[in-house]
Amino acid sequence: MNGTKNIRLRKFKDHNMSVMEDMLAVEEPLEIRLVYGPIENRIRKSISVTMRTPGHDEWLALGFLKNEGVISQISDVLKVSFTTYHKGELNPNIITVSLKPGYLPDLSDMERNFYATSSCGICGKASIEAVQSYCMGQVSTHGQPIPISILSDLPSKLREAQMVFNATGGLHAAACFDQVGTLIMHTEDVGRHNAMDKISGCLLQSNKLHDIGQYILLLSGRASFELIQKAAMTGFPIVCAVGAPSSLAVETAEATGITLIGFLKQTSCNVYSHPQRIQHS
Amino acid sequence: MNGTKNIRLRKFKDHNMSVMEDMLAVEEPLEIRLVYGPIENRIRKSISVTMRTPGHDEWLALGFLKNEGVISQISDVLKVSFTTYHKGELNPNIITVSLKPGYLPDLSDMERNFYATSSCGICGKASIEAVQSYCMGQVSTHGQPIPISILSDLPSKLREAQMVFNATGGLHAAACFDQVGTLIMHTEDVGRHNAMDKISGCLLQSNKLHDIGQYILLLSGRASFELIQKAAMTGFPIVCAVGAPSSLAVETAEATGITLIGFLKQTSCNVYSHPQRIQHS
Repeated sequence: MNGTKNIRLRKFKDHNMSVMEDMLAVEEPLEIRLVYGPIENRIRKSISVTMRTPGHDEWLALGFLKNEGVISQISDVLKVSFTTYHKGELNPNIITVSLKPGYLPDLSDMERNFYATSSCGICGKASIEAVQSYCMGQVSTHGQPIPISILSDLPSKLREAQMVFNATGGLHAAACFDQVGTLIMHTEDVGRHNAMDKISGCLLQSNKLHDIGQYILLLSGRASFELIQKAAMTGFPIVCAVGAPSSLAVETAEATGITLIGFLKQTSCNVYSHPQRIQHS
Repeated sequence: MNGTKNIRLRKFKDHNMSVMEDMLAVEEPLEIRLVYGPIENRIRKSISVTMRTPGHDEWLALGFLKNEGVISQISDVLKVSFTTYHKGELNPNIITVSLKPGYLPDLSDMERNFYATSSCGICGKASIEAVQSYCMGQVSTHGQPIPISILSDLPSKLREAQMVFNATGGLHAAACFDQVGTLIMHTEDVGRHNAMDKISGCLLQSNKLHDIGQYILLLSGRASFELIQKAAMTGFPIVCAVGAPSSLAVETAEATGITLIGFLKQTSCNVYSHPQRIQHS
């Protein structure tokens, strides 16, 4: 199966030891390179190395660039390809995104410090304000409220779809649902930020970002500042997490207009911000 | 409570909605600065910003530097202090580690690329080899095997001690036990790498690293490459995880001489590498 590796281990159970075969989630580095600038003077730059589970690497690279503010739509991109190494072999751990020659990315965003302002130094408040200014207008305030009964079914739909997790227990997942709770897509990765970037990249590549105001994001674990920052950059109005949010995740959701739901279960959930999008029957 | 924040939320449960108070795990940025060089010409450098749960920040900074290879023992450090911001106020999110004037850190380690070699480009194998060369001799091969019955009790001991997790459900934990299963210390953080760095920093600061060959590390979640890399830099011979390991975590444990245990429960566990340290009665 893609993203898994078979290994041999010793299992100790109830005072017995057995040697058995099992599957692990694969973790490998991915380097993302960017090619941009005018056709006569292209610039190549390595911009990130992340430890990820191979699979949907094109989505991962595109989503990462979208969520860092380097690209905003698929038409900014000329092509995405794995990099040829010496002797003409493809290296599956280096992916290159070439931007349209006419498109000049603002890479100062990549080097921005999300966490500091000149007035207070480094603090959570500065982090929130930075996300707020980058995500201005990204999260739609339109749309019908969603019945709570639709949300409560989402975790079980994701679990049914989670092939690699079921096999290895080692992956985070993210999923995108529509307003009636139909699973549109889901992704899995050893890194929760990668699972999120893969969702964003898929929506970008399939030209679905103009419908983002209709979509619901589900995260299989906890909600951190980084995940809410990425959700805001993509434009998700509703973010649900199966686990707990952090303080800064809640404050960032509040500031960027995201409805944040945590501890989502079949029979209960907590709504931390912008409850107007939730319809309680 | 330290590391938590009270908030107001809407809870939906069994078709009822109530407004209630709850606690969240705090997430705030921490900038780590380094001061080093000869006394007449000190150099100041910002080396990291991490999103962390406040508390034990001194351990976090020291452990981060230890696990990045910048310092190796507490005598390399002159002092650790929060940074004074303008108007003389302390900024609790900027911590400065001043090294002894005679100690010259090798910061090329900080800028090393753990993931690439010139022969194969970027890949998991290169990542493992880099950790291997940095951790040469760190993990002791001596010591008595540990009875499996001691290991199986560790997760419940950690859960009993996990104050903030119990309150918020939002934190990763790491813990250090001795060879008879006594909890020596534990740490909690929204970032699992921070919980690990805090453990390393505490052992460094309390001069316990010379006993590291006697200690067992327990991680409350999954085991990734990054966590095994840090465990190897600190020198833990046995690493237990309540969750699943990744493929690269297992391979790195194998290469650095660490006994890696996953899915640790009261009645069962999986041993992925170096089983000779486990005694099966």
